[in-house]
Amino acid sequence: MGAKVSLIILFTLLIASCSAKSKQYTPCKSLVLFFHDIIYNGNNAGNATSAIVAAPEGGNLTKLAGQFHFGNIVVFDDPITLDNNLHSKPVGRAQGFYIYDTKNTYTAWLGFTFVLNTTDHQGTITFAGADPIMQKTRDISVTGGTGDFFMHRGIATIMTDAFEGEVYFRLRVDIKFYDCWSY
Amino acid sequence: MGAKVSLIILFTLLIASCSAKSKQYTPCKSLVLFFHDIIYNGNNAGNATSAIVAAPEGGNLTKLAGQFHFGNIVVFDDPITLDNNLHSKPVGRAQGFYIYDTKNTYTAWLGFTFVLNTTDHQGTITFAGADPIMQKTRDISVTGGTGDFFMHRGIATIMTDAFEGEVYFRLRVDIKFYDCWSY
Amino acid sequence: MGAKVSLIILFTLLIASCSAKSKQYTPCKSLVLFFHDIIYNGNNAGNATSAIVAAPEGGNLTKLAGQFHFGNIVVFDDPITLDNNLHSKPVGRAQGFYIYDTKNTYTAWLGFTFVLNTTDHQGTITFAGADPIMQKTRDISVTGGTGDFFMHRGIATIMTDAFEGEVYFRLRVDIKFYDCWSY
Repeated sequence: MGAKVSLIILFTLLIASCSAKSKQYTPCKSLVLFFHDIIYNGNNAGNATSAIVAAPEGGNLTKLAGQFHFGNIVVFDDPITLDNNLHSKPVGRAQGFYIYDTKNTYTAWLGFTFVLNTTDHQGTITFAGADPIMQKTRDISVTGGTGDFFMHRGIATIMTDAFEGEVYFRLRVDIKFYDCWSY
Repeated sequence: MGAKVSLIILFTLLIASCSAKSKQYTPCKSLVLFFHDIIYNGNNAGNATSAIVAAPEGGNLTKLAGQFHFGNIVVFDDPITLDNNLHSKPVGRAQGFYIYDTKNTYTAWLGFTFVLNTTDHQGTITFAGADPIMQKTRDISVTGGTGDFFMHRGIATIMTDAFEGEVYFRLRVDIKFYDCWSY
Repeated sequence: MGAKVSLIILFTLLIASCSAKSKQYTPCKSLVLFFHDIIYNGNNAGNATSAIVAAPEGGNLTKLAGQFHFGNIVVFDDPITLDNNLHSKPVGRAQGFYIYDTKNTYTAWLGFTFVLNTTDHQGTITFAGADPIMQKTRDISVTGGTGDFFMHRGIATIMTDAFEGEVYFRLRVDIKFYDCWSY
């Protein structure tokens, strides 16, 4: 009798355990980071961390295009910091590109990687997704990772933390990993 | 005796159950959607939903390049519909880019996101992959999702449902999710 | 007594088995492939497999830009071979793009797909990530696959196997899949 009860309990525990492993909703790891983007405008070559490299017909490479910048591609190598201060010691670089892809509002498509290199974190985190910039928070996908983030997947919530004209912006990125692998 | 048999059956069931959870072939969710791309050609600014923003040497931004459009990058914000009618009420936007990347046939590389916003579906689905356009059906990867598609992965089968000159095309996208997370 | 011991052993085995399935560190599949990139420089149209399609201000499309090529986007359709010989029979094509994204060293962001079409392998493998070119080995993410690589994920270790001026390079790609699905 006791053995049967044990079996049932065991069965329930194991099913729960298997499910939880691959489908948990609670993050297995979290990180909050900021990155800072200074777009080249023809006069700030020393400070700029990004550059317009493609533009729609009639556009140019030192000024974001009209029509909500539709058609601009910007390449970036931005410092990542632990707080919202551009001058804090960087913990890595955010590298990749964004594309302004809407004609009637500010929306971008992002493809980039966080390259982290500190005593706390060694490795990369790769992101992809749509960024409806005018919304307070936007979720994009964390599609992969390497090093300390080996095979990780998750969701990143992006917030525009500062925005100064068309030259500087700062994004706060709340990364929640739901699929963590370790070795 | 009965207990031993039970154990063996239990063991088999559990192994099967664990495997099935993470490796099932049957989709856990399916969606069929259409999206519509109208490329800007210099004369259709009002209707166009996409624009050429990069071209190879000698190319321009109002006409797709020769040599199978090799080297063109197109940025898009296309309406998504439930059927194949361009004028149906959109259920979201397909946002991202495609790159014509072959010199001897029509092939593109796609990076884009479906942003869905209806009573049925709230959330994003992100796609990446090679699109050998001349094949009847092509499979690309669904690399992530947010909202109702939280952490989802799957395969999208793309079909060219209509193609009119070099200005309009419509794609049918059969999305099959094999990894579904819920919360 | 014996039944209790069996239960404990069974429990341990099953937990280990469930974990291993979704989180194993040992690759479930491995591949080593090479691909070959010949950049169009204005004089090699016949042989070139890639082309510069975007450049920063002051750049052009037949010569990689100064400042570590920062801001160049290159589109490619490169042959994949099983060994390091450019003239070996290709087993597929590497299709996608890379973006030089740093001003003070050679770093690229890669988004591309291996399209394999042989008796051994039918299907696609999609990659994304940062490539700090000057490091001997670099890890990027395998974010998805189709066909024989249905739903696969993994890590690709990239090595520059040859580099000739600014026209030819060859990459060795060690792909290790840690998440394999079959059907």
